[in-house]
Amino acid sequence: MSTTTYPEAVIEADKELPIIRITRDFQATPAQLITAHTDPELYARWVGPDGISVEIDYWDARTGGSWRFLNTHHGQDFAFHGSFHEVSDTRIVQTFTWEAMPEGVSLETLTFEDLGDGRTRLHAQSLVDSFEARDGWLASGMEVGVNDGYAKLDALLADGGLR
Amino acid sequence: MSTTTYPEAVIEADKELPIIRITRDFQATPAQLITAHTDPELYARWVGPDGISVEIDYWDARTGGSWRFLNTHHGQDFAFHGSFHEVSDTRIVQTFTWEAMPEGVSLETLTFEDLGDGRTRLHAQSLVDSFEARDGWLASGMEVGVNDGYAKLDALLADGGLR
Repeated sequence: MSTTTYPEAVIEADKELPIIRITRDFQATPAQLITAHTDPELYARWVGPDGISVEIDYWDARTGGSWRFLNTHHGQDFAFHGSFHEVSDTRIVQTFTWEAMPEGVSLETLTFEDLGDGRTRLHAQSLVDSFEARDGWLASGMEVGVNDGYAKLDALLADGGLR
Repeated sequence: MSTTTYPEAVIEADKELPIIRITRDFQATPAQLITAHTDPELYARWVGPDGISVEIDYWDARTGGSWRFLNTHHGQDFAFHGSFHEVSDTRIVQTFTWEAMPEGVSLETLTFEDLGDGRTRLHAQSLVDSFEARDGWLASGMEVGVNDGYAKLDALLADGGLR
């Protein structure tokens, strides 16, 4: 039995595959974390770095649906879009493109491991089609958005915003 | 300048990445090949092995749309579904799941290289998240469906069914 905990996100590059894996524990149920990733108003409140506003363009969080949102930071817009391949009680599988790099597409798989003590471990896997693209993401400063975002999600959970 | 031609599909495993690549030339324009992959009635006429009937469940071939179809063979049904991440004049990016293996998801990228002499080279890339899954597809007999399907598409093009 492992006693490792992940109060901060651990971001890892797979050695053999063009994959980034993120592991992070939350004081939440799996259902609350799924809601946090599928309800557009809630998602907009926590995703991304501090100080960035999130505007949902479209959002249909069901198997076969799709999504698009914009970030605004110091007057610059950053847009992202993708499809929801699967939204179920056990996982979310979706595609992801940053529109400034429209050729790049990643396949994201989120799974929610119930730790049985009121906490849930989020496993997020991002698969791309080259090691160069994967390493480019790792070098991009993505950890700022990941850590800031999950800290905002912690606060939302603590405030009772995700019953 | 390469003079290699691909009148039969070449199916290759990438050495470094969990990717299958298929290359195949057609007597067609890029626009005709895109139509063959996006029009559900046309797609149902050529995709898959000989002797299998194709029933479209739903089909919305636009960026952000999704699809599902069923194959029937000797009374057995095989169902597949996915999302269209991108449908444009230059490529189609879509997800793909065979419902008998619901955990498995591949990210498919189709590009259409105009050879300038009335022929177009289709490049199809399938990305999955493990070498085991990739090698399982290669060992599954997939080449029968690929080759039978593309032969039916050749015949459709020769018959003038894709103007």
